[in-house]
Amino acid sequence: MTVNTFAKACTDAPLLTQGLAEFVVSHPSQGWDADVDHAAHRTFINWLGCAIGASGHPTLAAALAAVADLEPSSQASVLGRMERVDIASAAFLNGISSHTFDFDDTHLKTIIHPAGPVASAILALAEKQRSSGRDLLDSLVLGVDVSCRIGNMIYPDHYDRGWHITGTTGMLGAAAGCARLLNLDVAHTVMALGIAASQPVGLREQFGTMTKPMHPGAAARAGLMSALLAAHGFTASPHAIEAPRGYAQTISTKVDWNEATDELGKRFEISFNTFKPFACGIVIHPSIDGCVRLRNAHGLQPDQIAKVDLKVHGLVLELTGKKTPRTGLEGKFSVYHSCAVGLMFGAAGESEYSDAMVKRPDVMALRDRIHAVVDNSIAESAADVLITCTDGRKLHVLVEHAIGSTENPMTDAQLDAKFNGLVEPVLGSTKAASLRDVCWNLSEQPNLVALFRAGCP
Amino acid sequence: MTVNTFAKACTDAPLLTQGLAEFVVSHPSQGWDADVDHAAHRTFINWLGCAIGASGHPTLAAALAAVADLEPSSQASVLGRMERVDIASAAFLNGISSHTFDFDDTHLKTIIHPAGPVASAILALAEKQRSSGRDLLDSLVLGVDVSCRIGNMIYPDHYDRGWHITGTTGMLGAAAGCARLLNLDVAHTVMALGIAASQPVGLREQFGTMTKPMHPGAAARAGLMSALLAAHGFTASPHAIEAPRGYAQTISTKVDWNEATDELGKRFEISFNTFKPFACGIVIHPSIDGCVRLRNAHGLQPDQIAKVDLKVHGLVLELTGKKTPRTGLEGKFSVYHSCAVGLMFGAAGESEYSDAMVKRPDVMALRDRIHAVVDNSIAESAADVLITCTDGRKLHVLVEHAIGSTENPMTDAQLDAKFNGLVEPVLGSTKAASLRDVCWNLSEQPNLVALFRAGCP
Repeated sequence: MTVNTFAKACTDAPLLTQGLAEFVVSHPSQGWDADVDHAAHRTFINWLGCAIGASGHPTLAAALAAVADLEPSSQASVLGRMERVDIASAAFLNGISSHTFDFDDTHLKTIIHPAGPVASAILALAEKQRSSGRDLLDSLVLGVDVSCRIGNMIYPDHYDRGWHITGTTGMLGAAAGCARLLNLDVAHTVMALGIAASQPVGLREQFGTMTKPMHPGAAARAGLMSALLAAHGFTASPHAIEAPRGYAQTISTKVDWNEATDELGKRFEISFNTFKPFACGIVIHPSIDGCVRLRNAHGLQPDQIAKVDLKVHGLVLELTGKKTPRTGLEGKFSVYHSCAVGLMFGAAGESEYSDAMVKRPDVMALRDRIHAVVDNSIAESAADVLITCTDGRKLHVLVEHAIGSTENPMTDAQLDAKFNGLVEPVLGSTKAASLRDVCWNLSEQPNLVALFRAGCP
Repeated sequence: MTVNTFAKACTDAPLLTQGLAEFVVSHPSQGWDADVDHAAHRTFINWLGCAIGASGHPTLAAALAAVADLEPSSQASVLGRMERVDIASAAFLNGISSHTFDFDDTHLKTIIHPAGPVASAILALAEKQRSSGRDLLDSLVLGVDVSCRIGNMIYPDHYDRGWHITGTTGMLGAAAGCARLLNLDVAHTVMALGIAASQPVGLREQFGTMTKPMHPGAAARAGLMSALLAAHGFTASPHAIEAPRGYAQTISTKVDWNEATDELGKRFEISFNTFKPFACGIVIHPSIDGCVRLRNAHGLQPDQIAKVDLKVHGLVLELTGKKTPRTGLEGKFSVYHSCAVGLMFGAAGESEYSDAMVKRPDVMALRDRIHAVVDNSIAESAADVLITCTDGRKLHVLVEHAIGSTENPMTDAQLDAKFNGLVEPVLGSTKAASLRDVCWNLSEQPNLVALFRAGCP
């Protein structure tokens, strides 16, 4: 990347479409530190677990039925399922399932969920063209870098305006990743990014409906198709991202070009990707984390717990103060249920938020021994947990940064446990274990045959 | 439609998604005046001619190659071609070809090209489910009404911001038309509109590239898929269009709700659709029209013309002042070439803008006898044409409103001639004639077999 690449175009905008294309095309394979590559492996395994975990959800069933109306070819896998579809539909469907549980990755600076659009698009393409695991990882790192940098550039105004930033930046990351995987040259990659720039997907108004997870799916599809169109000579503006009537200035009032260009090729946004340990709103993660920590440190059994006293930030009770949830979904809005399952199972994944789980007598009994009060000295990222045991012991922890935050990321072992919780109910423990092994060794896989063998029933 | 349907939702927004869905579902077949139905026939024949005319263009070839990468099923026709593809891809491809020549319809109040997204989506769906011509026309009128009303609501701020309004409203019209054709009930049609609302396509920066005509194609595809998803139970916000973080308020600073709701079911926007007689920028249409009028009135042959003096608006020479165009595309930016072919052939369609045509000695010779000056008394919609004949006669016309404007619409015979000029080079005159007959009698077609038999080679 030379300085000239970002010479001024119109007004103060750099030649961003061209510059990002040069970066995506020419950056060396694995041209980053080991911790970036490790973050890429973690991003991939977390995304894969989420996609497989939700593969039986009604959201995916409805989307699959619509795709089936097109009688698609059998080019690519729908993760966690027997059906095969064309690669664009696979990108669409896997993107949907990966975001259905709202349990996927978060780039905290922009609240983009970057893997959904990018990984869904490149994996479908990689399956068809028998790419190596290394090539897949390279395109994941570069694709995520493009969408998150674009996100940095327009966040928060763009998001505040009403756009669901995951799907309105993701088509650019997906196009970048697919262009890399297709070995497009710079000129064609410029076109791929340009074609994608016309297709942002997603409104925040859709939160709470199936259309929310459709956003990363449709962005994945749009990015993949943009790369295929470019490969066949389809044209777009070479300044589609930065021109006065291009993507950035049309879709956002704030555009900070430096956010897209600074330290390009040196700082990789995938390094800042975070993973949710618990399948609920982030506001109650510190409380759950405190319960799990005390449980594990003291080998606590539910019947040893006389009562639990939580001191929490005001938002916790405002958003998740439901004392007697009646469905699994309501359980996600109950700090009491969430802490109860944390104490009982050491986990609060999708299975701990089933309808059956919130009605289990032992869970309900433990839940009713949990009390929470708002304490103004407790930060939003913190929680104070005090457990009184039946033998009189008092166990205490103040969680300052919950597991899953930037300051306190999930360990690989914890990611494995999350993956197991999502994948084992769908594929069984043997396939889950084999898939986990493939993922952690993705960089060494000559092709993805083993991944797809393990990733579908 | 009751008044209550548009009861206030949030702030001052009416329940627009619900209201439009009720309208689309419940409005009677052919529930409008005969002139509205006539406008629908004209809209369809003009759209079909444009799509077939551009079916051999490199833009469509590149798009088709990308679609072929998906190995699509053979559900639906690509107009003017032998290939068959799935219905979503047919919507995409026919939408692209219909806008490739920039020769399609214009809803002047919003400069939306409404048929591209709507007709492309409904025709593909109609082919698969063997709909009648009547059902197709009903869904065309209603779909166009939805996208143009949404356009009225947000134009011009939305367009000024940089969006290509054809593709950013068209997915709603396409979803509405497809929902009608699928016989969805109100609840499912609300969802179809909601899903579509998340998928606006198109930036003005793409003008001059293949991505411009991709916008109506991608909007057609998005609208069709939204209706299919809704049919299978996929959900979206029931207030996706009007909510504070919904479509309208996210995508436009100006939102005039009344434009969407006033006289709904009484005034139909398709009535205001206009058609271009000449395959070039509208600014030189008055000059060409004047030349054609004098040619036809006096039976002029080129060798009878000594010289032509044009008085034109300043924009004409600023935008189309090219004296010696070297390619067909450059010919579109030459008032001289345009008037020469108008005088010689009585037409300025795509065939009059071929590379060969601008190099024809007789065309060049006539072109060089045409002179143009800016006259500040001439309006943008007007032109003053004075022809001096070799026998000394002076022939004059002042064109106030060119053919194709709202004040002076093309006649059906002129639309037929335009259609022939576009379709005959692709399908031959026999098929063109038979297709024309089908189109003018579309309302009586029990199915569309005859249309597709004539519409492909």
